Amino acid sequence: MEPNRREIEVKAKLLGSNNMQADLNRAHFRENNCLAINLIGSPGAGKTALLEKTLPQLIVNLQVGVIEGDIFTSKDADRIAVHEVPVVQINTGGGCHLDSKMVSKVLPEFDCKSTDLMIIENVGNLVCPADFDLGEAFKVIVLSIVEGDDKPAKYPVIFRNAKAVVLNKMDLEAFTDVNMGNMKQDIRIINPDIHIFEVSCRNGNGLEAWTSWLSQEVTAYQEKENLAGTKL
Amino acid sequence: MEPNRREIEVKAKLLGSNNMQADLNRAHFRENNCLAINLIGSPGAGKTALLEKTLPQLIVNLQVGVIEGDIFTSKDADRIAVHEVPVVQINTGGGCHLDSKMVSKVLPEFDCKSTDLMIIENVGNLVCPADFDLGEAFKVIVLSIVEGDDKPAKYPVIFRNAKAVVLNKMDLEAFTDVNMGNMKQDIRIINPDIHIFEVSCRNGNGLEAWTSWLSQEVTAYQEKENLAGTKL
Repeated sequence: MEPNRREIEVKAKLLGSNNMQADLNRAHFRENNCLAINLIGSPGAGKTALLEKTLPQLIVNLQVGVIEGDIFTSKDADRIAVHEVPVVQINTGGGCHLDSKMVSKVLPEFDCKSTDLMIIENVGNLVCPADFDLGEAFKVIVLSIVEGDDKPAKYPVIFRNAKAVVLNKMDLEAFTDVNMGNMKQDIRIINPDIHIFEVSCRNGNGLEAWTSWLSQEVTAYQEKENLAGTKL
Repeated sequence: MEPNRREIEVKAKLLGSNNMQADLNRAHFRENNCLAINLIGSPGAGKTALLEKTLPQLIVNLQVGVIEGDIFTSKDADRIAVHEVPVVQINTGGGCHLDSKMVSKVLPEFDCKSTDLMIIENVGNLVCPADFDLGEAFKVIVLSIVEGDDKPAKYPVIFRNAKAVVLNKMDLEAFTDVNMGNMKQDIRIINPDIHIFEVSCRNGNGLEAWTSWLSQEVTAYQEKENLAGTKL
């Protein structure tokens, strides 16, 4: 059941315009030596919970900024603000994903020059955000294991395009029928290079590995940028 | 962060065309005295599991057909087919929701005349399907309580437009921080007339109330149609 030609044209135009602004955003992050990541997952997968648990460790050594995408309400930004990091809420007013223009409009509200890591939490949706480049360095998926082990095979686009996946709510594994072996196997078939983290935001298990990896990614990004700088 | 005028125009045109076909689908269901419902929820909320648990009871007294919407794979249709009800899979090939044209194209594959209830399981997405009328009599939401009690307030459009919500995975309540009182209060603030069912597809609790209600809805729909028929 393919979309018709007119729909394909409209979508291509929309994505083309989005990609141009995304490249500008990416250049902005690069100039400021700021690693930007695009956090994607279903409603309730635990994206905000992951940030709440991750920020206290990250801010010890890094300057972090957060962009919170939501359809309505500023509930998530309120949860992040208590961690005393700069946070800006984007309400899409019904829209099912963030796009690069929305992100570019809020960037002036941050001091990007002194920000090491910009975390962009997308709208709760495992489908549409996959298509829209925001100018991030890479995408990270948050998936609640309670959603079931068939989800990677059913939503392959997002798994193909992400650098890491955080499998959350591992504390509930024993109370569900999820087969973690099948889930991870399917993820690796779709994307053999993806980093997989198994965590519980509720009891804290596995979070250290995720936080360490993310900190190393910031260091690697900044070293690469500095190296590029010396070449000029 | 409102969409621009061009985006609004494109969306209005798309929805206008969708609504016209939806009205035709609705007329088709009405002529055939077949109640059609549109089942909406996030990936992994338990839409297919609800059908698997509901069909054995429903088919005792009703002829049921199922349309399975998915982005890729026929995993869900395969799960339904074992219950020996007519099932047709729609793969959107990347699309984030079903639309009325997709549904109209598969309707000839059913014997609608002898079907009492057509269940259309939408793509796993709590956002986009809310905007697209398929010609159903009403929408039903499936929400996993593990997604968190803040979800109704964050996704109000779909809760405003649904006749019933099935709160699934109640067996996990004790192992999460979800506040069911808050969740149900928020749902009723958005939609005071909505029917709320608390169920566990895993242990079967609460499913009888849901199945009974749905059967009564079929009867009421068919009586209304018959009544209208006698007026002609």
